Amino acid sequence: MIKKFNEFDIISRYFAPLARDYPGALGLTDDAALIKPIVGHDIVVTTDILVAGVHFPELATPETTASRVIGCNLSDLAAMGATPLAFVLASAWPNTISEDWINSFSLSVGNISSANQITLIGGDTVATKGPMSHTVTAFGTVPSGFALTRRGTKPGDQLFVSGTIGDSALGLLAIKGKLTHAADQDIKTLVDRFRNPLPRLILGKALRGVASSVIDISDGLVQDLSHIARASHVSFEVEYSKIPVSMAARNISSISPDLKNYIFSGGDDYELAFTVSQDYMVEFKRIRESLDVPVTEIGYATEGDGDVNLRDTDGSKIRLEVAGYRHVFGDK
Amino acid sequence: MIKKFNEFDIISRYFAPLARDYPGALGLTDDAALIKPIVGHDIVVTTDILVAGVHFPELATPETTASRVIGCNLSDLAAMGATPLAFVLASAWPNTISEDWINSFSLSVGNISSANQITLIGGDTVATKGPMSHTVTAFGTVPSGFALTRRGTKPGDQLFVSGTIGDSALGLLAIKGKLTHAADQDIKTLVDRFRNPLPRLILGKALRGVASSVIDISDGLVQDLSHIARASHVSFEVEYSKIPVSMAARNISSISPDLKNYIFSGGDDYELAFTVSQDYMVEFKRIRESLDVPVTEIGYATEGDGDVNLRDTDGSKIRLEVAGYRHVFGDK
Repeated sequence: MIKKFNEFDIISRYFAPLARDYPGALGLTDDAALIKPIVGHDIVVTTDILVAGVHFPELATPETTASRVIGCNLSDLAAMGATPLAFVLASAWPNTISEDWINSFSLSVGNISSANQITLIGGDTVATKGPMSHTVTAFGTVPSGFALTRRGTKPGDQLFVSGTIGDSALGLLAIKGKLTHAADQDIKTLVDRFRNPLPRLILGKALRGVASSVIDISDGLVQDLSHIARASHVSFEVEYSKIPVSMAARNISSISPDLKNYIFSGGDDYELAFTVSQDYMVEFKRIRESLDVPVTEIGYATEGDGDVNLRDTDGSKIRLEVAGYRHVFGDK
Repeated sequence: MIKKFNEFDIISRYFAPLARDYPGALGLTDDAALIKPIVGHDIVVTTDILVAGVHFPELATPETTASRVIGCNLSDLAAMGATPLAFVLASAWPNTISEDWINSFSLSVGNISSANQITLIGGDTVATKGPMSHTVTAFGTVPSGFALTRRGTKPGDQLFVSGTIGDSALGLLAIKGKLTHAADQDIKTLVDRFRNPLPRLILGKALRGVASSVIDISDGLVQDLSHIARASHVSFEVEYSKIPVSMAARNISSISPDLKNYIFSGGDDYELAFTVSQDYMVEFKRIRESLDVPVTEIGYATEGDGDVNLRDTDGSKIRLEVAGYRHVFGDK
């Protein structure tokens, strides 16, 4: 027989300890939490829902679930150039969840929070008959006027991405058992990229006052670039051969010709894509050399209104079937 | 045939217009939103998930859904004495949702926001195979050090509630078709209390610096009072006959002997329960007379550690089977 437990048990046993050191969290025992703002700084607010079976596999471990739930919000803070501060976590748990699962999940949430200097300060816990879902609303701080947005790119600005692109989407494919002919080591590398996204917080902060636009790649490179292109009223020329791809992904491309699609439209890498104008290039080079983060130039902005033009190695235009992930409604 | 639409259509067509006048919302086109804090004020943060079939009926109208989703967060701000500022809305929609439904929902969200001087500044939109759910994280401001909590009650403090208690729970019962012998007018009154909760924002603000503890009644009077009792390390003596009950609820009590249970354990009234020490009674009386909000004294705090003792009209102790709503896990 499984011992029953309720929402107040969950909060006091597993989540209140994570909030212990933040006075404004009021021990997770009150109607709300308090944030004391820093003079001269704005508060950056981002929210994401992650649903089991959509944003992480239904059978994902507590560790992977925590890592993705917290990671995607930290990545949004990184894209704004924000310093992480605090977050609230609203979880809908299936009635059948075990206390062990929640315990492991909360421990991982605590570890990821500590590693990224962000603190749980509040939340909500409900039961659902549907799939598990977690909504994190995360807060960061940024000196007033220095938040990085998507709307500052001008024609001529150069386009960069951090890290390597497409790994996470291939990792998810591997988890689903669809990369059967790949080498074990490559699978391990890619799956790890999916399981443990690495928000680019240090890079994001360093780009304050230097990058003209920044976005984190969550829906797929092309779709996310088109968000910058539309918000900034420019278009992008992107060279396929310049897009940084990991060795593991390259190895797999020899057995899966669809690799291009995963690079262009696979989301969840949580790398940053950003533009820098020629005026800030000297400053940017200095930053680039001082940081231990790989950054690659992949194209540039042109006059235009929201197009992302992909060029193959021979200069021909690449056409994509699917540009990125989007939730679709109106099915009956 | 139903026309398909995606998350970006939903955001730009229905939600971006609600955020138009708040510059920090960045037109709902960016990774995050910006809040510019007020010097000398703290930011109050509260988050609630509402799941269809749990927190509102699966077949609730878009208007009722919006009213409950926004209302319960405003009520948390009221309980902290906060002035509403902004909120983010993370919605998981079933794939089968129609654009009309979302349109009506967004219009109601806009109306309720305007009426309470709070603005949508961000959110997330995903598809789910489970029931619809909405997570609101709401922000308010309060002069630093003046937030109302649950931890300030001392033995001897008097206990008050606003409005009438139990109406909303009876309203939900009526919606479920379980109040068949009641008069139409009573049903209408009670259902309206469920559908359109009235967050007590003006009262909450007025209680700053005066009430020793405040909570909003969302899980049921007894359970919510026990939250104050535990956080403040006191117990409460509550007189049943003093608890304010509406005429509609009284009329129904003559045909439903379970009324007491609905008054003690029915949640969702979103009234405030609060304590005031003798030292602030003069100031409190002045506030009480100046506000157009009914407030009733129902008991007092004693030495103790978290008990809520209910006394019947003859002074005998009332025992309750169910003290309030709580989400329970560990079913198999």
